[in-house]
Amino acid sequence: MGVQLTLDKVLERAVDLFPDRELVTKLPDGSVHRYTYGDAYDRINQLASALDDLGLDRGDRVGVVATNHYRHYELYFGPACSGRSIHMCNMRLPDHHFVHTIDDAEDRVIFVDPGLIEKVEANADDLDTVEQYVVLDDEVPETDLEPVTDYESLLSGQPTDYEWPEIDEDAEYGMCHTSGTTGLPKGVAYSHRAMYLHSIMGGHVDANGIGERDTILPVVPMFHANGWGLPYGATLVGAKQVFPSVHTDPETIARLIDEEGVTFSAAVPTIWLEMAEFLDENPEVDISNIDRLTVGGSAPPESLIRKYDEEYDAPILQGWGMTETSPLGTLSTLRKETAALPSDEQYEYRAKAGIPVPGMQTRVIDDDGEEVPADGETMGELQVRSPWVTDGYHNRPEENEQAFTDDGYLRTGDIATRDEMGYIDVVDRDRDVIKSGGEWISSVQLENELIGHEAVSEATVIAVDHERWQERPMAVVVPRDGATVDADDLEAHLAETFPSWWLPDVYEIVDEIPKTSTGKFDKKTLRDQFDVVLEAE
Amino acid sequence: MGVQLTLDKVLERAVDLFPDRELVTKLPDGSVHRYTYGDAYDRINQLASALDDLGLDRGDRVGVVATNHYRHYELYFGPACSGRSIHMCNMRLPDHHFVHTIDDAEDRVIFVDPGLIEKVEANADDLDTVEQYVVLDDEVPETDLEPVTDYESLLSGQPTDYEWPEIDEDAEYGMCHTSGTTGLPKGVAYSHRAMYLHSIMGGHVDANGIGERDTILPVVPMFHANGWGLPYGATLVGAKQVFPSVHTDPETIARLIDEEGVTFSAAVPTIWLEMAEFLDENPEVDISNIDRLTVGGSAPPESLIRKYDEEYDAPILQGWGMTETSPLGTLSTLRKETAALPSDEQYEYRAKAGIPVPGMQTRVIDDDGEEVPADGETMGELQVRSPWVTDGYHNRPEENEQAFTDDGYLRTGDIATRDEMGYIDVVDRDRDVIKSGGEWISSVQLENELIGHEAVSEATVIAVDHERWQERPMAVVVPRDGATVDADDLEAHLAETFPSWWLPDVYEIVDEIPKTSTGKFDKKTLRDQFDVVLEAE
Ligand SMILES: Nc1ncnc2c1ncn2[C@@H]1O[C@H](COP(=O)(O)OP(=O)(O)OP(=O)(O)O)[C@@H](O)[C@H]1O
Ligand SMILES: Nc1ncnc2c1ncn2[C@@H]1O[C@H](COP(=O)(O)OP(=O)(O)OP(=O)(O)O)[C@@H](O)[C@H]1O
Ligand SMILES: [Mg+2]
Ligand SMILES: [Mg+2]
Repeated sequence: MGVQLTLDKVLERAVDLFPDRELVTKLPDGSVHRYTYGDAYDRINQLASALDDLGLDRGDRVGVVATNHYRHYELYFGPACSGRSIHMCNMRLPDHHFVHTIDDAEDRVIFVDPGLIEKVEANADDLDTVEQYVVLDDEVPETDLEPVTDYESLLSGQPTDYEWPEIDEDAEYGMCHTSGTTGLPKGVAYSHRAMYLHSIMGGHVDANGIGERDTILPVVPMFHANGWGLPYGATLVGAKQVFPSVHTDPETIARLIDEEGVTFSAAVPTIWLEMAEFLDENPEVDISNIDRLTVGGSAPPESLIRKYDEEYDAPILQGWGMTETSPLGTLSTLRKETAALPSDEQYEYRAKAGIPVPGMQTRVIDDDGEEVPADGETMGELQVRSPWVTDGYHNRPEENEQAFTDDGYLRTGDIATRDEMGYIDVVDRDRDVIKSGGEWISSVQLENELIGHEAVSEATVIAVDHERWQERPMAVVVPRDGATVDADDLEAHLAETFPSWWLPDVYEIVDEIPKTSTGKFDKKTLRDQFDVVLEAE
Repeated sequence: MGVQLTLDKVLERAVDLFPDRELVTKLPDGSVHRYTYGDAYDRINQLASALDDLGLDRGDRVGVVATNHYRHYELYFGPACSGRSIHMCNMRLPDHHFVHTIDDAEDRVIFVDPGLIEKVEANADDLDTVEQYVVLDDEVPETDLEPVTDYESLLSGQPTDYEWPEIDEDAEYGMCHTSGTTGLPKGVAYSHRAMYLHSIMGGHVDANGIGERDTILPVVPMFHANGWGLPYGATLVGAKQVFPSVHTDPETIARLIDEEGVTFSAAVPTIWLEMAEFLDENPEVDISNIDRLTVGGSAPPESLIRKYDEEYDAPILQGWGMTETSPLGTLSTLRKETAALPSDEQYEYRAKAGIPVPGMQTRVIDDDGEEVPADGETMGELQVRSPWVTDGYHNRPEENEQAFTDDGYLRTGDIATRDEMGYIDVVDRDRDVIKSGGEWISSVQLENELIGHEAVSEATVIAVDHERWQERPMAVVVPRDGATVDADDLEAHLAETFPSWWLPDVYEIVDEIPKTSTGKFDKKTLRDQFDVVLEAE
């Protein structure tokens, strides 16, 4: 057996070369916890021994229900390096989905934040596989959970030198579930090999280029596709990391960026949209330490990317990925040719999902199974292949038969275009694309243009049934505080960019758009809410 | 079988995303050949079909005896992607070593440059495994070789769409032999997996950071440890590449750097020492397009690194590696802490072999099998482990028993120190380190200081036998054109840095120092030449 691509090597590198680099957590009570990779390493070793004492065998899963903080970080490595697996639980899922994910993963132990204990308590009766609970604190609060202990007692007295077992690189180190945007969340098991490769790729100059000089703040929850791989990628290079715990409000994030010298951060667009409103109201707050923000999970509008350049000196890179892809697939980096364009034209590319990162193969396939022309317009299904793309969902044999092509590409279910420069643009999900009279209308492109209207705070577009055209677009729009908009304004705005048959038939002005557990527009709920059939005029 | 880490994927990425990027060759006749990744791809496909016609089976090796040029580049991929292996032959080896390497690799076909055909002709009678010859040209010159054809006839009429077979990532794609500095060159077989990983790592910001915006000029011969992996790493990212063929003289290299916009180049120190003399005489030539030069194979002196910064605006990074390590192991990048030092102190670190690149594990082990303290002074053997370190020499079962530790580290035979910042410094080979009265003296450190003397052009230090101290250092020095030096000057110069017991007992002033096949000082020959026993005074 050659040298295996395992996560103990990712961790050991940080400890070997950068033992004094800091891991900083803004704790729920507002105080700041600081320690180093060296300190974390000791505790990760203790954790591994504690898992032995808990009776966890090779391959067993521990569920973690936690915000982003240093103990969660320790759980990213302790189970993995000792041959178990971390199941990163999404506590924002509705209860029946939450229970399903833990059941599906067969978690034997649940590690839970004191602040999230109610979610677990409320469902504890249904968590049949769970044998014990550990509260991520130094004491056990009032709780019905049992048996239960606290994390610090668990670690206390354990030796700080665990001998990592030999692990096959194909062994599982972790599991996440998809966001549940389109239905029941699906389980994805990750191998050591996948995340090792994803971590090296994460430092590639033509990807995120995460290096030892960076300071990384993952705003994206650590349950969302491995925190987009950031805690692992940052560890490989020994970068300083900053964890916000419960404080994902724009103000705390902005101040952490400023005070801790954060150079790289990542989250879904809604976070950065909120941040923009905050920064506009608090012009004295400065986030220009940022070298790049990776924004993905859904498409950030071009207007947001411009604003972050022009007003905050914090460049946005769009990323596309999935839970199934570890997650990074494409990134809207500029290449020699697009970097040479006038900056105004560069935005056209920066607003796309981007170029496949090294190690990722992509193609866009039409209904006949052919690659679409590289014209930036013709839509097809995005298919991807890479050593860090899953080779199947957990416990879903039927889905797995559909999910892959014969030559091993994952059918993403995303509708995309590809242009002559190799940029992929994800214009919709196949379930959300609006099929109007045999032609397709991209809901995402309409959304991005709507959000560029000065009076609009949030906007989404869904398909509604139509007697004649099968489906037609409906826009759902939240005006900015104090602003008003009407359908005529919006239609005039969209008409500047799109042909008339793309323009929504209906504009609903609302106070709020429902969001999913990972902060995406919840179109499933919206479609139920606006379940109408439009008549042919 | 998951997605395999194979070189067809490295190639396909360039062709998919950067089909129009150029590969430029300065041909032997001085003219320039230009084509694109798209063009090269067609020819690589043709080459694969041609290898079928030549009757080459899976795993068979083809030997390549060639300088760096586009046809050699095609041979980097054609055999590999179609399931064969390229044996990169070092034609600068003395005949008996040259024959040994081809015999050892069992090459069935030899591809040879017209300009190197004599070397092959002179040894053809001894090349027992070779069945046919292909001359890398569009016609066959006068030659005794047979059967023989020319490369262009071989490709001509072949289809441009070969279907790559499924290849296991552990399969061999290539073989190199070590430089033969210490004895018979040893064969190292490389797996697809090793070079795929080495290529992704090569783009890591904390390694060489090779990206699509770079223009890469490998001066290092493509037979020397995969051309240090550059043609593969550059292809993964679609970077423009420039090949000098026979023109490795400073003038042509400097002009190529200037005219083709070369941002990255790599070679052994002697090349850059010669370049410095040329640039000093031709101050109008400008190499400041260079972002970084990787210099390795032996240690570049600190004075060279300073000079390239100060006078040519072409920063040097020292790299350490071996044929056995694909080759990249460590790189003298600055880390946050050393980058913050005054630039004068930075040189202390930049003159070391450097920090292990992501994916490379290193340790320095003393005679008792313990890690040496991280004090930058205590010497021990450098041991390394990585998925791109070989797991054994070809056909050398006895050597292989000695070469690895029980936990899978390669014993490099290099003597090194490690400092508190994690920098490794390779101070000698175990065969060259001078064992004086039970203490060790680093020949390399003495050399680096000698070369810093203004009147010295080249210098090396070897051990000579001593009646009382077992071994003592002898310096062998080439003065600069027109300059004179004597032992007193040199001793006074060294005494500024080293304790008196380190100072050489003898200084030999010579016209030239013999070099090995890869441009290193040939200490084996020197030791034979100065085979004396010094007497105790
Ligand atoms: N840059 C982007 N632009 C557009 N869509 C994106 C982008 N990045 C991610 N997405 C969307 O997010 C999806 C992946 O999200 P995730 O894995 O979090 O679960 P989900 O697909 O939202 O939920 P589920 O699969 O359970 O329905 C992608 O398939 C794509 O639809
Ligand atoms: N930056 C460096 N500083 C000092 N020595 C170096 C450096 N880079 C490489 N070397 C030397 O080069 C060696 C690897 O060279 P290579 O594989 O070309 O063959 P060789 O060791 O010279 O020849 P052979 O193994 O056949 O004797 C290393 O083991 C080391 O001794
Ligand atoms: Mg999904
Ligand atoms: Mg060697």
